[in-house]
This record gives sequence, C-alpha cells and structure tokens, in this order.
Amino acid sequence: MSYAALLETMGRVNDVLNAKSILSWDARTMMPPGGSVTRGKQEATLSVIAFQMLTSDDTRRELDAAEAELAARPKDSVERTIVAQVREAVQYHSRIPSDLIRRRAELGSTGQDVWAKARATNNFALFAPLLEETVALNREMAEVIGYEEHPYDALMYRFEPGETVATLRPLFARLREGLLPLVKAIGEKEQPRADFLERDYSPESQYEFALKMAQTVGYDLDRGRLDTTIHPFEISFTRNDVRITTRFSRNYMPMSLFGALHEAGHALYEQGVDPDYTRTPLATDLIGLYAVGGVSFGAHESQSRLFENHVGRAREFWDIHFPAAQAHYSDQLGDVTVEEFHRAINRCRPGLIRVEADELTYDFHVMLRVEIEAALIDGSLKVSDLPEYWNAKMHEYLGVAVPDDTHGVLQDVHWSSGQIGTFCNYTIGNVMASQLFAKAKEDGAISEGLARGDYDPLRAFMVEHVHRHGRRYSRDDLLLRATGRKLDPEPYITYLTDKYSELYGLEKEGK
Amino acid sequence: MSYAALLETMGRVNDVLNAKSILSWDARTMMPPGGSVTRGKQEATLSVIAFQMLTSDDTRRELDAAEAELAARPKDSVERTIVAQVREAVQYHSRIPSDLIRRRAELGSTGQDVWAKARATNNFALFAPLLEETVALNREMAEVIGYEEHPYDALMYRFEPGETVATLRPLFARLREGLLPLVKAIGEKEQPRADFLERDYSPESQYEFALKMAQTVGYDLDRGRLDTTIHPFEISFTRNDVRITTRFSRNYMPMSLFGALHEAGHALYEQGVDPDYTRTPLATDLIGLYAVGGVSFGAHESQSRLFENHVGRAREFWDIHFPAAQAHYSDQLGDVTVEEFHRAINRCRPGLIRVEADELTYDFHVMLRVEIEAALIDGSLKVSDLPEYWNAKMHEYLGVAVPDDTHGVLQDVHWSSGQIGTFCNYTIGNVMASQLFAKAKEDGAISEGLARGDYDPLRAFMVEHVHRHGRRYSRDDLLLRATGRKLDPEPYITYLTDKYSELYGLEKEGK
Repeated sequence: MSYAALLETMGRVNDVLNAKSILSWDARTMMPPGGSVTRGKQEATLSVIAFQMLTSDDTRRELDAAEAELAARPKDSVERTIVAQVREAVQYHSRIPSDLIRRRAELGSTGQDVWAKARATNNFALFAPLLEETVALNREMAEVIGYEEHPYDALMYRFEPGETVATLRPLFARLREGLLPLVKAIGEKEQPRADFLERDYSPESQYEFALKMAQTVGYDLDRGRLDTTIHPFEISFTRNDVRITTRFSRNYMPMSLFGALHEAGHALYEQGVDPDYTRTPLATDLIGLYAVGGVSFGAHESQSRLFENHVGRAREFWDIHFPAAQAHYSDQLGDVTVEEFHRAINRCRPGLIRVEADELTYDFHVMLRVEIEAALIDGSLKVSDLPEYWNAKMHEYLGVAVPDDTHGVLQDVHWSSGQIGTFCNYTIGNVMASQLFAKAKEDGAISEGLARGDYDPLRAFMVEHVHRHGRRYSRDDLLLRATGRKLDPEPYITYLTDKYSELYGLEKEGK
Repeated sequence: MSYAALLETMGRVNDVLNAKSILSWDARTMMPPGGSVTRGKQEATLSVIAFQMLTSDDTRRELDAAEAELAARPKDSVERTIVAQVREAVQYHSRIPSDLIRRRAELGSTGQDVWAKARATNNFALFAPLLEETVALNREMAEVIGYEEHPYDALMYRFEPGETVATLRPLFARLREGLLPLVKAIGEKEQPRADFLERDYSPESQYEFALKMAQTVGYDLDRGRLDTTIHPFEISFTRNDVRITTRFSRNYMPMSLFGALHEAGHALYEQGVDPDYTRTPLATDLIGLYAVGGVSFGAHESQSRLFENHVGRAREFWDIHFPAAQAHYSDQLGDVTVEEFHRAINRCRPGLIRVEADELTYDFHVMLRVEIEAALIDGSLKVSDLPEYWNAKMHEYLGVAVPDDTHGVLQDVHWSSGQIGTFCNYTIGNVMASQLFAKAKEDGAISEGLARGDYDPLRAFMVEHVHRHGRRYSRDDLLLRATGRKLDPEPYITYLTDKYSELYGLEKEGK
C-alpha cells in the first residue's frame, strides 16, 4: 500500500513534468510571439510544483513506509530500484538550497540576452562578468551536491551519472590518439563535390522527405509528429506522444534530413520504453526534474547518433534509398550518383562551429568544452583567459584559426542559461552508439536487414537492450548487459577509421 | 504583505490552469492519436493541483490575513473584489465533497463512448441509464452547492452566476412571443438561392480568407493563431496568447468563415482584458477552475455572437468586404451579387440540429434544452419521457418533425460529459450582444466606422465597457454600466425583427 501510494505520487510528478514539457514544446513550435510574456512563469510554476511534490513531507513519509514495506524484496527488483531512485532524488534535492536554485534561474533568465548581444557584437568582455558569476554559482552548486575527486563531477552527475573528470581523461586521450591522425590525413586529400546539396530545396519537399526517412527507420507517427523549429529537438510526453522537430535551410538540404533522423533516433528510445514504466520513476528523471525515459543524456545521444550516422549516413542505406531521394528531388539530385551523394554527406572538414561539425571532428569540439568547463570549475582556468585558451586549443586539435569570439568561445548558448556540465554526453553518445551498433551487427538477421532496408531487426535489438529498460539500469549496466563491456571507445575508433579510410582512400595505420 | 502572498498563490493557480488549457488545446489540435492514453491523467492531475492550491490551509490562512489587512479599503476596490472572489471560491469548493467530484469525472469519462454509440445506433435506451445517473448526480451536486428557489439554479451558477430558473422564465417567454411570429411568417416565404455556398472551396483557401476576416475585425495574431479542429473553440493562456480554431467543410464555406469570426469574437474579449489583471482572479474562473478573463459564459458568448452576427452577417460588412471575398473565391463567387450573398448567409430555415441553426431559430433549441434540464433536475420530467417531450417541443417551437433520436435528443455531446447547466449562456449571449451593439451604434464614430469597414471604434467600445474589466464586475453590472440596463431582450427582438423583415420582406407587426 505504501509503495502504491508512493508510485501514485510519482505518477503525478510525472504528469506535471510532462505538462511542463508540453508547454516547452508549444513555446518552441506553436506559440505566438506575445505568449512569451507569461509562458515563462507558467513553466516555472510547474517546475516548482514538481519539486515540492517530490520533496514534500508527505512524499518522505510514503518513501520511508515503502522502503520498510519492500525490505524483503530483492535489491535489484523493479520496486526497490524505483524506491531507491526516489530516495536518491529526494536526498539530491535536499542538499541544494532553494536560494541557489533561484539565483541560477535568475542568472539564466538574464544571461541569454547578454550572451546574444555579446555574440552579435563579438564582445566577450560583455559576457565575461556573467560567465564569472555562472562559474562561481556552479562551483557553489558542486560543493552542496558533493563529489569525491573533482567538483565538475558533481555537475555532470545530473546529465551523465557516473561520469567523472577521471573517467573522461583516458577516454578523451584515446580518442585524440585514434582520431587526430585521420583528421590530419584527410586534410591532405581532395574533397568530394557537394554542390548539389546546396541547390534550391523547397522546405515543403524537405519536410516530406525527412519525415519519410524518419518513418523508414521506425518512427511511429501514431505516437509522434514532426514540426519546424529554430533549434531542433525531440521531446516526449510519455511513450505515447514523442515529438520531433527539424529545421530547413533552402540551400542546404542535409540539415533537415539528418536533423530529422537524429531526432527520430532520440524518439525511438522514448517510444520503446516499457509501457509498464509509464508515469513511474523509470520514465522520469527525478534529478533533472524532466519527464524522460532515457537513462542518461549520453545514452539518449547514442540512439540519435546511431540512427543519424550509423544507419542514415551509411552507404548501404543510400544504396537502398537514393532512388527514392532522386525521385523526390529530381531537379536537385537527377545528375548525382549514389557514390557522390554518399561522399558528399560524409565530407570531413575541420571547422569552427560545433553544430556544423562532421562525424570525425565533432568530438574535438566537445573535448574542448569539457576541458574548459572542468578547468573553470576547479579554478585552473580564468574566464579572462578563456578566449585565448579556446583559440589555441582549436588550433591544436583541428588546425583552424579562430577569427573572432563570435565564431569561437561565444558560439554556444549553453553557458548563458547558467548551466555547466552538459557537454560530455555528445561524445559519450558517439562512443556508445558504435559499441551498440557493432554488437548488433554481429547478428546476421540485423546485418541482412540493414542491407535490404529493413530496420526492424536493428530496432528490435535496441528496444530489447536499451529502449525498453527506461531508467531501470545505469548506462554502464545497460552496456554491460548488451555488449559485455562498459563504455569502450575502441568500436568507435574502428568505425571512424574504417569509414573515413574508405571515403578518402587513406592507408590504415596499425591500431 | 498578506494580500501580496495571496495574489502570488492565485498567480500560481492561474499558471496551472493555463497549463491545463494548453494541454487541452494541444489535445484538440496537435496531439497524435496515441497521446490520448496518458493526456487525460496529465490534465486531471493539473486540475487536482489547482483545486488543492486554492483550497489548501495555507491559502485559507493567506485569505484570512488578506481580509484583515484590507478591511479599511473600500468594498468595491480591486483588492477587496479579488479577495471576495477567492473567499467565495474557497467556500464553493468546500461545499462539494471530493467523492462527488470523482464520481462525476468517472461518469464523464465513460459517458462519451456510450453516448457516441447510442447516437450512432439511434438507441436512446442505451444512453438513458447514464443520463439517469447524470441527473441524480447533478441533483446531489445542486443540494451541496445550495440554492434559494430551484436546484437548477445551483448548477447554472458555475457558468452564468446570478441566472436562475425564475429569471429565465420571463426572458424565454418574451423571446418566444417576439420571435415565433417571425419564424412562422418566414415559413411562408420563398427562400433565397444559396447554391454557391455549397460549391467546392478548398480548405487552404478557406483558412486564408477566414483568418483574414478574423484579423479584419481586430484579432491580434501577435497574441494568437488559428488552427483546425473538429469542434471549434477559443482558448486563452493569459491575454498574451489567445488561440482560435475553426473547421472546414469543402462544400459549405460559411462554416469556416463564421466559425472563425465567432471564435475571434471570443478571442477579442480575452485579448482585451486589462494587462494588470493577468494571473489574478480577475482573469481566472476560480469556481469553474478555468483560466479565463470573461466574466460569464453568456458574456463571452455576447462577444462571439456580436462579431459573428452583428458585424459579420451584416449587409454593410459585405458591402465593404464582398469584393475581397469574390477576388479570393473567384471560381465560387464570381457570378454572385452581394445581395445574393448576404441573403444566403442569413437564410432562416427551422431545422433539427442546434449547431446548424440560424440566428432566428437558435434560441428555440436553447430554450428546449434549458427547460428539459431544469425539469429533469426538479424531477418533473423523467428521462424515459425525454424523447417524446423533445419531439413535441421541437414541433411546437419550430414546426419540425424529429425523425429519430439521433437527430433529436441524442444530438448534443454535453450530457455525456456528466455536466448539466451549460445551455442558457448561448441565449444570454445573443441578448447581451444586441444590447451592447445597439448602445455602441448610438455613437456616430462607431456607426461610421462600421459603414467604412473600420472596426476599431466598435472594438474600443467593447474593450472599454466589457473586455478590459475581466471578471471585475458581474455580467449585469457590466451591462448596467455600459447600457444603463441589466439584461434586456428588447434590443435583440428589435434587431431580429428588423433584420428578418427586411431580408424576407415581412410586414412588421406593431411591437
């Protein structure tokens, strides 16, 4: 009975967080401009309500009673896992004074305007005081949350539980060692033609084709829809309603296509969560206070990157689907071969901007940011030294010269929201995607499916090993159960080495 | 300080109710089919939260303290009006046991399916037991809410405060007396041609024209948007975001056009509420637990009917805008004169279905339902006798023979939701619209504006006398302040008599 009461309370917390997500989706896709005046308050009120419900005296009493009631159950039972997650969340939130939450929210609400102005006018000095404050506040946050080795660990916990500066260091070192030679070797090679990607593609025709490809990999429109937005995202309101968005550049078609495949990958995760977990903590992030079924941001990113890159940028995908692309875009792709198309959508060109980076250089943008955040938090890097540090690292990693801060340290919105600790999941996702994809392809039925354009066997593997579990297991436990290993960069390095060696005719070095 | 605290609590109640409205809008316009599985719970949870916030011990303490704090203020000050409304709402909700709320919600959730099946199969007997239960439950509800004369008064209170069976009786009698002769006289006249309204109008072109006309009467798209739905509605999430919907019949264009004008009228009310009232009880229905600025359902309907009928179906409106309609619908309206168009959109034909009724016969559908509801609630009519009673009254009022219950007593969705008491506002709205419009036109600037297609002076009158006040004054106080009289049917009877006499060439009887 106590456990049932706790579950019902958590169901209502989930309802409120889903409601907040619906408001957020609406604000980013449908809301008329004037609506922003009061929408912020509405979202904030729902956040406060969810927080209060989770940490109330009533909930604590239900939690105590549920723990007592379930004491005889196995520790790894679903019931005890749920109760343990609620306990952990209640403790986590109890450590953070409400004053700190309020100050961060205030910082976030002023930060975005200041950052936008600083970026538009290439004026880092304008943003620097706010960033100083953000760092100080997050340092304070790290101290109250607690950590064993590095204060940055406390900040990453909300997004990628278990990941630490100590675990990331060898991972990043291995990636640099494995990938930098490829980046350098490609720099000496001729680039494929890609002019046809920049022809005039109408947004309407892009919408149709992007949605068709999302459905092709399994995105279920009975429980989803595709809309247009400025910064694409996936968002879910339980597994029964999982929406994706993309954006359209008239003169760069891949943006909508791979944007939609990326978000569809996220969506497949949420659509695949066990229905029994609906409205439970196994489909609610009680630490981040966000209604999501995926177990970590990195795990989520693994699914988006898997369907965007391993599936959607593969030669075998386009061997099947390029005729449909050509039929759909006859004016733009009529004179293009599948090989040209495949090479064009996989061009590797070191650049300045993270969100425009290709598969091979993307992680260097991430490493740079993670290293900077950790150094800012532990005090080894000063905000005032940041632009110089940024530009030096960009040159070291990718050999590019940063012309100004607008195209450098001011490019990302993240820090203006008051948030630090959110970047590592992009690389974790890439690594994890390769690990899962390599394992899946060992199954002949899956490989054969991919070769003939049937993605059901692959998706069934992901549902079985990842999606359905929701937040039942930690990210590394998921990986262990699915692949026999915790997070492991080797399949990723192998994948990129093979892929880019073939695309650019590189000689493979012995690994 | 106490008043400020109460106001902040009410602001959060308003946020939650607005969030619920956003979920409801989404469910009716955007949600994929699968979403319905969990959306109901999400909306229900927000309702419960708003209810609990409003009636909590904390709120009661804030309310006591605010009353003490404001005791020296004038009783009709904004502050004391707000506090009085909160007190009234807290008392109202305290009278209703939660068990009764729960039973009505359960009844509503099963009712719709049963009703839909009964209507589809023309089987009143299938729906009758549910309707019996609905009547019994609403009778119970009336007893706990309390009333002076008739239990139906307690049910109408939520929708049309102050209206009672005793006040409606003379109003309805006067309407019958004034309007029935017109209906009968028109029955002997030739009908105008209207074939061109049923030509093929594409939904896309209908959307454009309907939206253009809504904007023409003043609907502000910076704080609104028009979408497609099955049952059109207006809904607001504060005055800053007020959305309308319409529906499109390929072969009956007026549905989208007058639907949009009707909802735009509702929207103008909400868009015009004083910005200072945002998030306060003066823009929140704390009795109905609904975030709305309009003071009663009838007052709201007055604005929709005013802009749909008094403005949008007037000859002077089309003298200005028919050329634009012809240009937009050149294939469909190219061979039609403005006179033909005006006569067609004002055809009067007694029919079976309320939602398809014209201006002159609409109120008879309403009176029938109100009389039935009141009689069911006071026990003078039995559910089993309902079909026979319905059919007899339809014949008495409109001279039509009801062929089956699907086109009779089973046509409306309302009773299947567990709700009784919602019908009178349609007629109140018609009456009030005429009263306000007649008063407004006494101002030369407003009349001249209407004649040249400038609706700003009219809208300014409505903003000044109705919209901006939100829920500050009662409906009758609003009318008194604006027109010098409480609700008065004479301007409405005069309006319809003049209009239909002219349209059908009737000789006017002495009034």
